[in-house]
Amino acid sequence: MLSLFARSALTTYRGFGPCSQTIVRAMSSSGGPTAPYTTLAISHPAQTITHVELHRPSKRNAMNKAFWSEMVDCFNEISGDPDCRVVVVSAAGKVFTAGIDLIDMAGDLLQPDGDDTARISWNLRKNITKYQNTFSVIERCPKPVVVAVHGACVGGGVDLITACDIRLCTQDAWFQVKEVDIGLAADVGTLQRLPKVIGSRSLVNDLALTARKMYADEALNSGLVSRVFADKEAMMASALEMAGEMAARSPVAVQGTKVNLIYSRDHSVAEGLDYMATWNMSMLQTADVMKSTQASMEKKSVKSIEFSKL
Amino acid sequence: MLSLFARSALTTYRGFGPCSQTIVRAMSSSGGPTAPYTTLAISHPAQTITHVELHRPSKRNAMNKAFWSEMVDCFNEISGDPDCRVVVVSAAGKVFTAGIDLIDMAGDLLQPDGDDTARISWNLRKNITKYQNTFSVIERCPKPVVVAVHGACVGGGVDLITACDIRLCTQDAWFQVKEVDIGLAADVGTLQRLPKVIGSRSLVNDLALTARKMYADEALNSGLVSRVFADKEAMMASALEMAGEMAARSPVAVQGTKVNLIYSRDHSVAEGLDYMATWNMSMLQTADVMKSTQASMEKKSVKSIEFSKL
Amino acid sequence: MLSLFARSALTTYRGFGPCSQTIVRAMSSSGGPTAPYTTLAISHPAQTITHVELHRPSKRNAMNKAFWSEMVDCFNEISGDPDCRVVVVSAAGKVFTAGIDLIDMAGDLLQPDGDDTARISWNLRKNITKYQNTFSVIERCPKPVVVAVHGACVGGGVDLITACDIRLCTQDAWFQVKEVDIGLAADVGTLQRLPKVIGSRSLVNDLALTARKMYADEALNSGLVSRVFADKEAMMASALEMAGEMAARSPVAVQGTKVNLIYSRDHSVAEGLDYMATWNMSMLQTADVMKSTQASMEKKSVKSIEFSKL
Amino acid sequence: MLSLFARSALTTYRGFGPCSQTIVRAMSSSGGPTAPYTTLAISHPAQTITHVELHRPSKRNAMNKAFWSEMVDCFNEISGDPDCRVVVVSAAGKVFTAGIDLIDMAGDLLQPDGDDTARISWNLRKNITKYQNTFSVIERCPKPVVVAVHGACVGGGVDLITACDIRLCTQDAWFQVKEVDIGLAADVGTLQRLPKVIGSRSLVNDLALTARKMYADEALNSGLVSRVFADKEAMMASALEMAGEMAARSPVAVQGTKVNLIYSRDHSVAEGLDYMATWNMSMLQTADVMKSTQASMEKKSVKSIEFSKL
Amino acid sequence: MLSLFARSALTTYRGFGPCSQTIVRAMSSSGGPTAPYTTLAISHPAQTITHVELHRPSKRNAMNKAFWSEMVDCFNEISGDPDCRVVVVSAAGKVFTAGIDLIDMAGDLLQPDGDDTARISWNLRKNITKYQNTFSVIERCPKPVVVAVHGACVGGGVDLITACDIRLCTQDAWFQVKEVDIGLAADVGTLQRLPKVIGSRSLVNDLALTARKMYADEALNSGLVSRVFADKEAMMASALEMAGEMAARSPVAVQGTKVNLIYSRDHSVAEGLDYMATWNMSMLQTADVMKSTQASMEKKSVKSIEFSKL
Amino acid sequence: MLSLFARSALTTYRGFGPCSQTIVRAMSSSGGPTAPYTTLAISHPAQTITHVELHRPSKRNAMNKAFWSEMVDCFNEISGDPDCRVVVVSAAGKVFTAGIDLIDMAGDLLQPDGDDTARISWNLRKNITKYQNTFSVIERCPKPVVVAVHGACVGGGVDLITACDIRLCTQDAWFQVKEVDIGLAADVGTLQRLPKVIGSRSLVNDLALTARKMYADEALNSGLVSRVFADKEAMMASALEMAGEMAARSPVAVQGTKVNLIYSRDHSVAEGLDYMATWNMSMLQTADVMKSTQASMEKKSVKSIEFSKL
Repeated sequence: MLSLFARSALTTYRGFGPCSQTIVRAMSSSGGPTAPYTTLAISHPAQTITHVELHRPSKRNAMNKAFWSEMVDCFNEISGDPDCRVVVVSAAGKVFTAGIDLIDMAGDLLQPDGDDTARISWNLRKNITKYQNTFSVIERCPKPVVVAVHGACVGGGVDLITACDIRLCTQDAWFQVKEVDIGLAADVGTLQRLPKVIGSRSLVNDLALTARKMYADEALNSGLVSRVFADKEAMMASALEMAGEMAARSPVAVQGTKVNLIYSRDHSVAEGLDYMATWNMSMLQTADVMKSTQASMEKKSVKSIEFSKL
Repeated sequence: MLSLFARSALTTYRGFGPCSQTIVRAMSSSGGPTAPYTTLAISHPAQTITHVELHRPSKRNAMNKAFWSEMVDCFNEISGDPDCRVVVVSAAGKVFTAGIDLIDMAGDLLQPDGDDTARISWNLRKNITKYQNTFSVIERCPKPVVVAVHGACVGGGVDLITACDIRLCTQDAWFQVKEVDIGLAADVGTLQRLPKVIGSRSLVNDLALTARKMYADEALNSGLVSRVFADKEAMMASALEMAGEMAARSPVAVQGTKVNLIYSRDHSVAEGLDYMATWNMSMLQTADVMKSTQASMEKKSVKSIEFSKL
Repeated sequence: MLSLFARSALTTYRGFGPCSQTIVRAMSSSGGPTAPYTTLAISHPAQTITHVELHRPSKRNAMNKAFWSEMVDCFNEISGDPDCRVVVVSAAGKVFTAGIDLIDMAGDLLQPDGDDTARISWNLRKNITKYQNTFSVIERCPKPVVVAVHGACVGGGVDLITACDIRLCTQDAWFQVKEVDIGLAADVGTLQRLPKVIGSRSLVNDLALTARKMYADEALNSGLVSRVFADKEAMMASALEMAGEMAARSPVAVQGTKVNLIYSRDHSVAEGLDYMATWNMSMLQTADVMKSTQASMEKKSVKSIEFSKL
Repeated sequence: MLSLFARSALTTYRGFGPCSQTIVRAMSSSGGPTAPYTTLAISHPAQTITHVELHRPSKRNAMNKAFWSEMVDCFNEISGDPDCRVVVVSAAGKVFTAGIDLIDMAGDLLQPDGDDTARISWNLRKNITKYQNTFSVIERCPKPVVVAVHGACVGGGVDLITACDIRLCTQDAWFQVKEVDIGLAADVGTLQRLPKVIGSRSLVNDLALTARKMYADEALNSGLVSRVFADKEAMMASALEMAGEMAARSPVAVQGTKVNLIYSRDHSVAEGLDYMATWNMSMLQTADVMKSTQASMEKKSVKSIEFSKL
Repeated sequence: MLSLFARSALTTYRGFGPCSQTIVRAMSSSGGPTAPYTTLAISHPAQTITHVELHRPSKRNAMNKAFWSEMVDCFNEISGDPDCRVVVVSAAGKVFTAGIDLIDMAGDLLQPDGDDTARISWNLRKNITKYQNTFSVIERCPKPVVVAVHGACVGGGVDLITACDIRLCTQDAWFQVKEVDIGLAADVGTLQRLPKVIGSRSLVNDLALTARKMYADEALNSGLVSRVFADKEAMMASALEMAGEMAARSPVAVQGTKVNLIYSRDHSVAEGLDYMATWNMSMLQTADVMKSTQASMEKKSVKSIEFSKL
Repeated sequence: MLSLFARSALTTYRGFGPCSQTIVRAMSSSGGPTAPYTTLAISHPAQTITHVELHRPSKRNAMNKAFWSEMVDCFNEISGDPDCRVVVVSAAGKVFTAGIDLIDMAGDLLQPDGDDTARISWNLRKNITKYQNTFSVIERCPKPVVVAVHGACVGGGVDLITACDIRLCTQDAWFQVKEVDIGLAADVGTLQRLPKVIGSRSLVNDLALTARKMYADEALNSGLVSRVFADKEAMMASALEMAGEMAARSPVAVQGTKVNLIYSRDHSVAEGLDYMATWNMSMLQTADVMKSTQASMEKKSVKSIEFSKL
């Protein structure tokens, strides 16, 4: 499904115009991680867009101890940054991520502290909860997060991308809910979010119970990703254009939409409507409605409107 | 997805036979709205089917103040009408709806009463809740509602159709969750219902956060609509045939099915099963089961059975 | 959707190699039901795989009184059998199932005991709850259940397959939510599970409200089944290969995955994550993690690992 | 429990000062129901307080058909009346209410329309839902409702008072969950609200399963009522003083408190907190906070502050 | 609290009249357990009342393996017995129960099977779930269960009584949530039900976290028990009279009341009301309403009415 | 209620024996706050007990900006401190707390940042959520928290104590849900937790809607506090003895009990039982069960057992 759209999309989004390729190339930071991070490179392809790049390419972006805590710091900062309106996540190197870095993490997972089974369990639960938070921060960040996947996206990588809002991938991407292969049930988000991200439960079960690979076409057909691109450059250009579209609109409207979409996922329709009304009773009083309406009536682009920071 | 079905469907439904075109044409009321309504035309293409037509074509069926309250009256009446078993919703003129009529509604939304921010918020919440109810009545109506969309279906139009049970559209239809373009998060149903209506969350987020248009093919592939038709006449014929199929079956069975499908959406499987058992402990005692079973054993069509009104 | 995968799948799964056809043929038990069952034939195509075959072919596997209780006994036994790691369900004869055996069941449904309407209702509710349990045992069984459908799958058959984890079918299969045709709302699982199994709500409503047939292609496109096969033999071979993949992995991992996937369906993401962490705080302490990790590092197949029974 | 307070309360509340007895006497309307109502007398003992009196004393305020719909109209009007800040409910005549007027209501309950059991059930469910609404409107009304009970409070009377916010009674009051005595489970609110209104589940079950009477002392000890008074005059004086206290405070604060207390009853603490934050993000912007804070700092009574209408 | 009532109650209930003492004495079966049970003595003090007596007095009614499964069989049988309308639970010997029989149960709890921590956990979870079911059957039984406690009620005893509907005790009774004393969190119901049975959370926490004893007066004041009696004989007489009151009323009304009270405990008020309406749409069609109403109008005792079995 | 217990309690708890008075006096730190805190004094009256004292007596422990963040740091540290098993919270000076420090907090509450109403709302919501967290950390801390209140406990003080597990107070204590007096609905916990802490909803509403004071006797009778003491010294001695009782028991048992009691508050009984079983499948494997059971059989005090840290 969506295959028709994948093609037409390239002509729909034009936010950055001809110069976007230059921007995209600039994003492929060869300079390594951005201090204080050691696994992430942060850049700003536009004033209102933050690009978070998994940047440990020599280890196939395997998720080591540093990564699990840096993601939390990084997204907490983004959440509080009034300049940032949209986030793009991608990865440096040949693949998106090989998943958890078992060697670096083995201690936490395989040799946890504790004088007896109960105390080991207690500490394991603390760790799992901490790791779950690494991806839940993406969801709690009110700014839309577009993730762009190329090559392998394995294990923890699937946990990560299902916590993002919009998923794109290249033709060579593949996805694997790897956990049963190493003797455990996926515990940092995939089993909770994947079934709410794609429509076929038979497919979700197949992926999670057999650990088989899913390739780009099936990812598109199943709705896991919205679009597939010939190569990473094309994907990044489109990710940026899409980010540009969202960044150009009222942040009150866009971020309120994300907050309520996530609320609705976890509640009945009646509860979602009640929350929505309570949310918008103040948010409708933004100056952005007037600015946007006026621009709309004057047939001006949303991109011509200047919105206050949020 | 579903594209194979779209083609075969035309031969599957034959409820109205050769004369259905006549009926369909008759439905395209040129006479204007049906009193006391000023924005809706009501007709009865068959004794058990009510046709509700958005009828303010000169304004592209934009949703003005009258519309928001007339829909409530209209569906409350339909809910209580024992003759009506199925509802078809469509629109007169060139498009389904341009969405909210901003000029007529501006007062309520942009200049609400209230002596301070809290009091303005209080009144806005009352208004939003009232507008949400305009589409929730469709859902609370126990009779199946088929909606047939042609041309533009924008903003409030998406809120409306996601509250219906079955969605059809023409090849020239397009859909737009327009709200972020005018500075607000959609607050009368789309953010709550759309994610429960289609399977790809990545697509839902894309549509709601960028306000881009979605065309008929993508609507079909994503499962938003069940079928796409070459033109409005073909669509209305099929909508009526489909309505005829449902109207021919036991209203106890059909309406109980709708009630329980909606209950299940908002509850766990265990809770849905408990409610279902409590529902059917009386509903199975209908004479309709015996009538239907007998007809089935005698290889008679369900259309030959006469069911009591409900 | 998924159509590309359907083709490539045949080369992906190779668990049983060239001899699988022999096994598959052996599974087509001509010997009739397995005592003490009268409607089910149980076999063990591999030590860790249990094959449950609906086996009342002369009656098109119609679900009679015996069936409704035998399924419960059968799955309770499977749940407690430490040798069994995966279940495959299929049917003998020309079709999967014609659904409920109305003649055998008529007493329970149409002439329930009770001195007045309330007492009849009370007894009907008891019966419905009992019948619901016939399929809920499949869901409560922590072992993955793959169901392979050929020919007709009608009424109760849809209730059955939506309680399984992975659905496959042949090109000649068709599905029908038949209940409204006999005057009742489906009450043993379809209305609760079908909307959580496939992504398009418009389609679910269409199927449940009109009782129309859905054929294999649409079942695949909508995500109801994961794959379609040319004939039953090919389907059974693939079902067994898929079962073999799951049976070869850590039962702690695989069964924990099923338990948590079902928990997540019925809870918010936050609640699902909490439960998951509480679950895995002990389950991560299995020897299977070390065994699996080591095999993975040594590039050995999971099939070479010997796991303790669960 | 609370018995100490019952005594001291009379000295605590002094809102209306010496003249309150006069007001109270004025409230005992001898003039009969207030048009258009036939079972309710409405008065305004103060500008911001509405007094709703059950007024069918010759029939012991038995709840006839008119009553069930008049309550809805009455409370809908109160909800929308910006002058009203608090409601007091009491009853004229010798007792609070004898409960449902079986003779007037028998048709609806005992001879409902419908061609078969299912259709009768369908209509009964509509009626029950309508009657439930008669008391749910009290809960949906954002203004605090104090109910003052004297003499008998039977059957539907218990449903009514559990939907109110604060309960008072006289020494001669008694309460009876009467429904099992006439062959039915209480279905318009008692079984849902009573267990959330008093702390001892053993007592709730005792009352609902044996239909025994509970007298004023036990009602006080169990927490059903907050205070017991020697006679009706003392109770009404105190009810008015209490109402006066609430009416003197910011309506934004008071009504927001009621809305959130009811929300919290039906949600987890975490959900209640989230809703509260979303509610108060606008409500804290009321001018009332500044006015109230200033009065508080200047040691002025809240009664000296003038708040805008809500 | 409730202390006034405790005294007056003895005069209120008079169901069994002067002969009730004889009946009560007859209930104190000296004959030992009733086959096939080894820990329970079952008797029928009246045709419609079943008396379940914990009967292992030499071991202070400690809960051994047999007990945990016999309770399930016993209550399943009671649930299905159309003659039984009310259940009274009490204990033989000097105390109600010393709680779990650690010596008999040690294997299940302290030396569970399993090759590694995960497998041991898996089996422990199965056992805990099974033991939880021992008391949940009391709750699932639609007939009211009155429990009468004398002497010690320790550990598992508290789990048991909180699953009953009405609690009575003698002056010498005491209660102890003992589990933290033996190194574990209570896991078969106390932590889930006790907070919903009594109103003071501070007290619940105190009891569960310090394992201190609570005596009869505090049990009465806190609402855990409804009444305290001087001795066991007085308590049993009153338990029977209370049971007689409930048994004399319509079983459709009484059992529907229990089912809905438990449903309401676990749902919001709105959900409870919806379920209630769906329940009563059939249950109101019982002949019992007419019989009861008529008796009521004719001033006849409910005890004179003959209701059909349920 | 509970009044009998209040007296007997002093003889029941003897954990610290005759020397406890000395300890209690030592706790009354005259040395001021403990760095880095400026509003809290932390001490360790026993190795396993942490005493947190609100310590800003010159300002009646009014909650200033520092307080709101120091509580979070303090309880996060306590949560992670393996030595600490129980927490006692009390206050220095003449009163427990005067509530929020309006002068220090006015900026956050009354002059929030933001260019328009929506942006101000956005920032207010962030602040409210942050302040809610100040008390939710108490609940998330798995160690039992006993709070001992003397003198005034106003506004934010009630929010604080309802998040604690066990509440004690002196005879001169009084409580006030003050918020409506300053024009706002209480938004940091009281409206969510108070109704789940005490049993009488009528009382909760009375307190929250009128802002009247509640004195010690009523606090005891209503179940808000478990005991009332003549003076602060007696209260602190008892708080410590109670803390000692809990600290002497298995931390696996005690903390597991707290976690599950809070879980149960927010879930249905069935969900609570499922979580409990999943929790205890590992926790029962603690060595503490064996140690405790053995001590129990040998009639040794739990205080003689040495448990590993948690």
